[in-house]
Amino acid sequence: MQEPLRDLSRLSLNQMTTKPWSVREAVEGCVQAGIPYIGLWRDKVEATGLQESARIVQDAGLRVSSLCRGGWFCAGSERERQERLDDNRRAIEEAATLGTDTLVLVCGPAADRNLPAARAYVEESIATLLPYAQEYGVRLGIEPLHPMYAGDRSVIVTLGQANGFVRRLAHPNVGVVIDAYHVWWDPELEREIEAARGHILGFHVCDWLVPTPDMLNGRGMMGDGVIELRRLRQLVEAAVYRGPIEVEIFNEALWQMPGAQILSLMSERYLSCV
Amino acid sequence: MQEPLRDLSRLSLNQMTTKPWSVREAVEGCVQAGIPYIGLWRDKVEATGLQESARIVQDAGLRVSSLCRGGWFCAGSERERQERLDDNRRAIEEAATLGTDTLVLVCGPAADRNLPAARAYVEESIATLLPYAQEYGVRLGIEPLHPMYAGDRSVIVTLGQANGFVRRLAHPNVGVVIDAYHVWWDPELEREIEAARGHILGFHVCDWLVPTPDMLNGRGMMGDGVIELRRLRQLVEAAVYRGPIEVEIFNEALWQMPGAQILSLMSERYLSCV
Repeated sequence: MQEPLRDLSRLSLNQMTTKPWSVREAVEGCVQAGIPYIGLWRDKVEATGLQESARIVQDAGLRVSSLCRGGWFCAGSERERQERLDDNRRAIEEAATLGTDTLVLVCGPAADRNLPAARAYVEESIATLLPYAQEYGVRLGIEPLHPMYAGDRSVIVTLGQANGFVRRLAHPNVGVVIDAYHVWWDPELEREIEAARGHILGFHVCDWLVPTPDMLNGRGMMGDGVIELRRLRQLVEAAVYRGPIEVEIFNEALWQMPGAQILSLMSERYLSCV
Repeated sequence: MQEPLRDLSRLSLNQMTTKPWSVREAVEGCVQAGIPYIGLWRDKVEATGLQESARIVQDAGLRVSSLCRGGWFCAGSERERQERLDDNRRAIEEAATLGTDTLVLVCGPAADRNLPAARAYVEESIATLLPYAQEYGVRLGIEPLHPMYAGDRSVIVTLGQANGFVRRLAHPNVGVVIDAYHVWWDPELEREIEAARGHILGFHVCDWLVPTPDMLNGRGMMGDGVIELRRLRQLVEAAVYRGPIEVEIFNEALWQMPGAQILSLMSERYLSCV
């Protein structure tokens, strides 16, 4: 059995876990709690201002593990599709300004019911963005979402599928982001984590609650659900990922807690369960 | 593009679609609506009585497309595991008595967090039951459920995984049941339906609503959601399945409608959308 993590040196707070907090509050919370990384969200950064957010993070000595999120490529009209590509270019610039080399891509739903066509278009869009990402020193991390989001959030729903994109795109600036919540159920998980060797750009953790109180905001604190998180970390580390581990929890009940308490609980569970 | 279905000759009412109805009510409803098949549920059959249910169906001239459900193999103790195997043996006998050759297996959650072990145990359990099923002329249809049920309903979550079981079990009395709701999101769907050629024992339809109102009872009437049902039927027919098509919809709102109205709506949508 895998050894527990001994310290918080790889821990990252994904801002969604403390959704009510601004960038400044989240950064100060991390400093207080001894958490060295933060995963930022674009809406929060926009609320604080891009340059100001970058300064706050830098002054605090925190490192930015990733920026969430680009993606959402499919749209009903050519004009909208161009707008979305432009928005992704801005996201790449923002990632560079914030000092992270990883932009997480959530690949959106199909504009109609045609999944194969939507998937092909997503691949084409990522190919279009890659030279731009390379110019900025940013890597695009394709995050497969849980299949229950196939209708409204992501046409990329398995790690195997994301690995296929990476293989075909064959570019140093594209890889995958593995979130335990989205992939834990997959019978091919072990094989596909191994297949992701060398292009894993991020590892996110939380837990799957039984029953699940809400399809979007019913994710669990590590240890409160059924995912074998330590086994999953073992697989990811065997595929030579040793980067930050982001705790990303969408949970209404959690967001009612004082932020400092969330950070204390997540640090404790990170050591005991991940 | 695939031609629409021209008549109701392959339509089956899965009893869950008219949950408030007893076996007798459902059978009479099918006769009135010109629906030739019914998919029965064990709890409903038990409420009416096994022999009585068999008689009602037979007297009405209906055919039973399947019996739901066996499975739920994993359990915390050896005694419970034996009880569950015994219950599956009874389900096989019931299927034979009711005149159907297909028992649908929903393979249950893991008793602990260990998915690989649970999956191995499910395979072992099906192997144990197969000689018994053969004796009764009953085929066991492994139904992969949507991955969002991996924590509480089924450790079998993809058609590829179910096909793997069938290949390894290599027995004429085992196959798969394909439910559009559970598999529509799968990037490997086309390939795995083709791989299921010759061992597809059932085809179920309903629709995926966006947003999904409830994880269990929020399934949609065909045409109300995002699944390309006709394309899916085309794939299943290309894999030479020409048997009954069961409409199985878990939906609280639908269950408020008068049963005859449900049957009329589902027949209309079956012709226009499937």
